[in-house]
Amino acid sequence: MPASPTILVSEVGPRDGLQSVARTMPTADKRRWISALHAAGLREIEVCSFVPAKLLPQMADAAEVVAHALTLPGLTVMALVPNLRGAEAALAAGVHKLTIPVSASEAHSLANVRKTRAQMIDELRRIVALRDERAPRVLVEAGISTAFGCTLQGAVPEDEVIRLAVQAVAAGADESGLSDTTGHANPAQVRRLFQRLRAEIGERAGAAHMHNTRGLGLANCLAAYDVGVRSFDASLGGLGGCPYAPGASGNVVTEDLVFMFEAMGVATGIDIHRLIAAREPLKAGLPGEPIYGMTPEVGLPKGFVQGATHV
Amino acid sequence: MPASPTILVSEVGPRDGLQSVARTMPTADKRRWISALHAAGLREIEVCSFVPAKLLPQMADAAEVVAHALTLPGLTVMALVPNLRGAEAALAAGVHKLTIPVSASEAHSLANVRKTRAQMIDELRRIVALRDERAPRVLVEAGISTAFGCTLQGAVPEDEVIRLAVQAVAAGADESGLSDTTGHANPAQVRRLFQRLRAEIGERAGAAHMHNTRGLGLANCLAAYDVGVRSFDASLGGLGGCPYAPGASGNVVTEDLVFMFEAMGVATGIDIHRLIAAREPLKAGLPGEPIYGMTPEVGLPKGFVQGATHV
Repeated sequence: MPASPTILVSEVGPRDGLQSVARTMPTADKRRWISALHAAGLREIEVCSFVPAKLLPQMADAAEVVAHALTLPGLTVMALVPNLRGAEAALAAGVHKLTIPVSASEAHSLANVRKTRAQMIDELRRIVALRDERAPRVLVEAGISTAFGCTLQGAVPEDEVIRLAVQAVAAGADESGLSDTTGHANPAQVRRLFQRLRAEIGERAGAAHMHNTRGLGLANCLAAYDVGVRSFDASLGGLGGCPYAPGASGNVVTEDLVFMFEAMGVATGIDIHRLIAAREPLKAGLPGEPIYGMTPEVGLPKGFVQGATHV
Repeated sequence: MPASPTILVSEVGPRDGLQSVARTMPTADKRRWISALHAAGLREIEVCSFVPAKLLPQMADAAEVVAHALTLPGLTVMALVPNLRGAEAALAAGVHKLTIPVSASEAHSLANVRKTRAQMIDELRRIVALRDERAPRVLVEAGISTAFGCTLQGAVPEDEVIRLAVQAVAAGADESGLSDTTGHANPAQVRRLFQRLRAEIGERAGAAHMHNTRGLGLANCLAAYDVGVRSFDASLGGLGGCPYAPGASGNVVTEDLVFMFEAMGVATGIDIHRLIAAREPLKAGLPGEPIYGMTPEVGLPKGFVQGATHV
């Protein structure tokens, strides 16, 4: 494995994936899966969300899952929190990083968190204040969802997306990334928006969270990489989507993303064989659930050696 | 529809797709399908290959199919020919363009056409001489197959790929493109090879023929576009692959490719709604055959207007 990865792949499957499937993965299986992901070299994992168990019973064991993830050396343990109450619980559990979804589409914001965008920025400000008081070393990320379009609203004006990211950083977020929650993004748009984002908030520009809804997930990640993005969300087996965005499905598959970048000579720090092996505990914990990924199904190309240079 | 498309999408389904499935599509269905593709705005279609009917019974009606395609106004009617004999038949049928597969991998060349690479360049020279004599306005394209790797041989040295393309042009080919026959390509490699190709043969650099075997098909097309490629092979419904390259499957899906470029604002000259409608005659002609394509399955994004600029 290369000593210094060029990009960070942030695994979101245990949160984004598991909260999208109807069944609940048993806690012991979650532990095994997260350990396998860590063993493959993933250095940041969104392990759960802190939300009311009656809304998302799949996440009822969030604190237990965090406790396990905290035992894994070198891992940044991340949780999604939609509000101050979730942030309190996540900080109490000891996470290293909080991610807060802020919808660029007003319609999606109301559907997803029952708040307007302005109310959500206020909530973010309160979460930052809590973090400052209780756990100042914890990072806060604002993920601008529906940044490339919305299944409820349609097009989302790019000016509004950028303005919201600027507001999020002004409210105290350490970083703000852009999410293609509903699979609307195209590579030209990805380049425009991430370039504008960097121009506005510099090094606080965060991850690209792309979906593969229309097959453009990897092309959009490549486009983001081309304009300097170095942090990518992905989900093992492509598990997940967004339950409140009708028709949205399919996070970028971690295995295919890692294969693409490693084949390009862009070091991820992830062992692709171990990554593919991490599908086993996922399958064991959710028997019968559809798991995607073209590279794992077809296999690595003949003669492929991770870290080798081209001939 | 925009008056002047920026890129050329060359549909290969009726050849590459149909010769990869075991069943034979009836001639009348081929006619309907090709007409529907033309009606969607495709200006170049590889309608068949001229090969012995005992090897590929799916292509036994090649001359009839060409005769129909020649009635469609503005269409460049293309056929694959693996040898001089096929070229004779194709020229007699009246095609506008011949494409000749020249494998960069010696192992694949022997398996696919039972000739070494050097013998294939000699065959190409004979085909060009025949063309010059019988139909000087017909274009000859050499498609360098296994240009990015080979399931039989593994890695294919980049120097050998470029040398072969240079030899093909020296032998009289009007253009030479690069094919990822076996789904080995990655975007960095695509950029390197097409840049080298253009540096060596200039405007004779031809199409990118990408497969989606490991999910990188669109990312590789984007990478090719970025370095100036303006001609892309694709197959409606992702039909096809290469019968002599074990494990190879999945041409880039025309519908997803057109969606990607149109969403980027890159005009293809193709009406995406009519293109999706052209799946119906394909399905009717091959009932039960798996047809791929994420954009047609999920639908166009809410608010998507072809040819509209971004907000």
